[in-house]
Amino acid sequence: MLLRNLMPRNVWYVAAWSSQLVAGEPLGRRICGQSLVLYRAGDGSPAALEDRCIHRGMPLSNGGEVDGDLIRCPYHGLEFDASGVCVRMPGQQHVPDATRIRSFRVVERDAMIWVWPGDQTLADPEGIPKHPHHTDPDWQWTSIFLEIACNWEMLNDNLLDLTHLGYVHKRTIGGDPNAHAGAEMKTTQTGNSVHVRRWIPNSEPPPHYKAGHAFAGKIDRWQEIDFVPGLLRLYTGGMDVGTGAYDGRRTGGVQFMGMHGVTPSTATSCYYFFSQARNFRLHEPDLEAKLHDNALATLLEDKSVLEAQQARLLEEPGRGNIDMRTDAGGLHARRIIERLYQGTIFPS
Amino acid sequence: MLLRNLMPRNVWYVAAWSSQLVAGEPLGRRICGQSLVLYRAGDGSPAALEDRCIHRGMPLSNGGEVDGDLIRCPYHGLEFDASGVCVRMPGQQHVPDATRIRSFRVVERDAMIWVWPGDQTLADPEGIPKHPHHTDPDWQWTSIFLEIACNWEMLNDNLLDLTHLGYVHKRTIGGDPNAHAGAEMKTTQTGNSVHVRRWIPNSEPPPHYKAGHAFAGKIDRWQEIDFVPGLLRLYTGGMDVGTGAYDGRRTGGVQFMGMHGVTPSTATSCYYFFSQARNFRLHEPDLEAKLHDNALATLLEDKSVLEAQQARLLEEPGRGNIDMRTDAGGLHARRIIERLYQGTIFPS
Amino acid sequence: MLLRNLMPRNVWYVAAWSSQLVAGEPLGRRICGQSLVLYRAGDGSPAALEDRCIHRGMPLSNGGEVDGDLIRCPYHGLEFDASGVCVRMPGQQHVPDATRIRSFRVVERDAMIWVWPGDQTLADPEGIPKHPHHTDPDWQWTSIFLEIACNWEMLNDNLLDLTHLGYVHKRTIGGDPNAHAGAEMKTTQTGNSVHVRRWIPNSEPPPHYKAGHAFAGKIDRWQEIDFVPGLLRLYTGGMDVGTGAYDGRRTGGVQFMGMHGVTPSTATSCYYFFSQARNFRLHEPDLEAKLHDNALATLLEDKSVLEAQQARLLEEPGRGNIDMRTDAGGLHARRIIERLYQGTIFPS
Repeated sequence: MLLRNLMPRNVWYVAAWSSQLVAGEPLGRRICGQSLVLYRAGDGSPAALEDRCIHRGMPLSNGGEVDGDLIRCPYHGLEFDASGVCVRMPGQQHVPDATRIRSFRVVERDAMIWVWPGDQTLADPEGIPKHPHHTDPDWQWTSIFLEIACNWEMLNDNLLDLTHLGYVHKRTIGGDPNAHAGAEMKTTQTGNSVHVRRWIPNSEPPPHYKAGHAFAGKIDRWQEIDFVPGLLRLYTGGMDVGTGAYDGRRTGGVQFMGMHGVTPSTATSCYYFFSQARNFRLHEPDLEAKLHDNALATLLEDKSVLEAQQARLLEEPGRGNIDMRTDAGGLHARRIIERLYQGTIFPS
Repeated sequence: MLLRNLMPRNVWYVAAWSSQLVAGEPLGRRICGQSLVLYRAGDGSPAALEDRCIHRGMPLSNGGEVDGDLIRCPYHGLEFDASGVCVRMPGQQHVPDATRIRSFRVVERDAMIWVWPGDQTLADPEGIPKHPHHTDPDWQWTSIFLEIACNWEMLNDNLLDLTHLGYVHKRTIGGDPNAHAGAEMKTTQTGNSVHVRRWIPNSEPPPHYKAGHAFAGKIDRWQEIDFVPGLLRLYTGGMDVGTGAYDGRRTGGVQFMGMHGVTPSTATSCYYFFSQARNFRLHEPDLEAKLHDNALATLLEDKSVLEAQQARLLEEPGRGNIDMRTDAGGLHARRIIERLYQGTIFPS
Repeated sequence: MLLRNLMPRNVWYVAAWSSQLVAGEPLGRRICGQSLVLYRAGDGSPAALEDRCIHRGMPLSNGGEVDGDLIRCPYHGLEFDASGVCVRMPGQQHVPDATRIRSFRVVERDAMIWVWPGDQTLADPEGIPKHPHHTDPDWQWTSIFLEIACNWEMLNDNLLDLTHLGYVHKRTIGGDPNAHAGAEMKTTQTGNSVHVRRWIPNSEPPPHYKAGHAFAGKIDRWQEIDFVPGLLRLYTGGMDVGTGAYDGRRTGGVQFMGMHGVTPSTATSCYYFFSQARNFRLHEPDLEAKLHDNALATLLEDKSVLEAQQARLLEEPGRGNIDMRTDAGGLHARRIIERLYQGTIFPS
């Protein structure tokens, strides 16, 4: 069954790009069905509270004021600190004990705001997936944020089966569909992670590769995907045929480290945090803009497909389906998510 | 009870105008709740498949590619032939046996694409209602396609009780409401068909009749309706008083053969395929355009009324109502649809 | 629990401003979930019928024609008198006995159309709340009509706890939040009415007070609220400090009599009829326009907050909340509405 409602809460999810969380401006998100307000405390550190005032249910993100470490309800002015404790009720001297809203562990790392929506006693920042490319001066990156009207597992499936590139993205990053379909693929699962390796030797470079590098002719391509719940990293690239792509000497050509934060919002919507880092032709604004535009066009192709797919699945949500050989990675991911949701495994 | 959810599937329904089904462009429809993709195979003949890929549920109509007799899924490239059999799965050599999506009998006739959404073993093209006026050189016709947000039975009711002309269409084709209400009416039912005959003698010609013919003064009008589930044919016209309208000598004046394909889509929406053929003043583009514009204005009046009615009925769906003398035709049609839905009769 | 669905029907509610009910033009409303059509009979008096023709469920307000005391269905022309009796069915001589739609007691008073949606035998026009300021030549008033996507009780709460002025309306009528919160407040309940008195001595006049009067400096403000189900009256104003605001000599300064008709429409929407009367600087069109614009800006701030609040409450409708000291008036009103809904008290 493709459509299910499994949003495990004991996971670190990307809630925002660091750049989206501006000092003085509360930001509303809904993660695993939980409404959150994010804001920066006086020292700039992120805070995450339930986005619902205990008094009359008002969303704090809807015009709430940040004042030092506090956030003030936009309706009647109740004030909460970054741990969710109510520190002031206008019109009365005394705030009853234990008057508070829920707070959530939130960590800023690798230019992202990470939130743990589940059992707060289990939140360990050591478990946040690493993505050093956002802070490594040898790489340059651009980012995109989208809300997609589909269940988050469909976006996971999408990213773990790149054979869709030849069809969905034939006008952008796709290249020759048959080359993709014929790729040598190897899928492995370890704990909560899935690794999918696809090599496409001796193939025509797609348009955005050509824009990045002057290839001699055909290239050896690779697509290597690492999945953990909430985050996929796609290391892709191509080099001139026979110059080392498949034997550990990846120093030239075109190399991209793509990061895909996939955060469940509701049963039928998710957030998509995408970044693309490259290690070639840095500091070229025109290229930067071109790559960004191309990435956005590509992601909007996915969005269109995913939303059409979601709408059709909702017509008969319990309907079965068949899998293909290329679904191996996605099926591993689905099993991990199911066990995580049931509490039989735990994210590293 | 006016609002019910009876969409009998063992019926030939109009799915599209022939002109709407363009070679190389798949067309999505939803008929009796069933999502369909229509396309033209290599020889131009129509095909109709379930609009949901067996792999990941993607609607094939959403960017799918037609390639000879095949249609290719826009997501991962699976290919299906016109009978729904999957003939290729990218990334693997072998397609498992019995991998297929549902296909539906589809026939192109009288400039329309007809689909049988029910039990495919019962689909007999002989049962498709005839409408030769679309191919008869003595008649000229114009067509309109609308989606209306109402249950299909409300559109049937609308067309089987033309007393609404004097109210809903008073600015277009209506004429004098009292003339309509006072018409002599005769309703007969035979098998699955209903025939309603209304004669309006010695009445003022409505504006669009005057545009078609120079009458001497008042006219004898007729409105003769034939209903079978899925299709209504309205033969209407007027001649100078006493010149033969009611004794079989209909050769002059203004004559229209209206065809109304009414196809249930969902419980609260339907497709409306309307054509209007005339046998006077052929090959006059200005008149043609004027008649088309007038017909569209008229149908949009119906759409507005029907959608307001549907919204009101949904507030209290089980609420009763009263019938009038003029509902005789509509009530026959409702009984036919109910029996057809229950399987106690069968469309001829 | 903040979100509940209590819409007591045995109440006089404002259905329209008199100016909104134009001769010859039926007006549709939905009050306590009941769809109504309002129109003016031949002598100008208001009529209120169920907005659903007994024949095919058509809303009479959707293009129905008013003809003397009658209203004619826009679909098939059935005619109803102002008491709901069907007096004509086109196409037949006889109208069956007892063919009628529901009618509702409706009274025009104080420039408003009042409707009693409940048990018609209990409708007593003596119970309609008085608001003589709309017809008193010593006062001048302006009015606003809004539909708000929130349960009507949230708008009651809003109006009965004016501490929100300092937060929601800080850019318009709010003034200093701390002054509001520190106001001396006294709440009393009598039968079905609640009276809340808030005095704010020696405070800074807000911008729209300054626009109305040249104050010497700080002012003594008052806010006195009278609630009965369906109507709140807010008597507010300010005078120079110590010139009599609190000892019965209110003759100068700025005085406003605000009226707030709050009419439940559906469980998640209400109508808001607001008027603001003043007794100073009458007959100044520029001031009039400025006050109107300021009032509209203020009400739109409320609408924005209330709709965000409603959306958030709907995420978890049964969730609890905490109350503050300033909620005293609103909690009295909620208890009155609950008892009224249960039938254990009756509006005076």
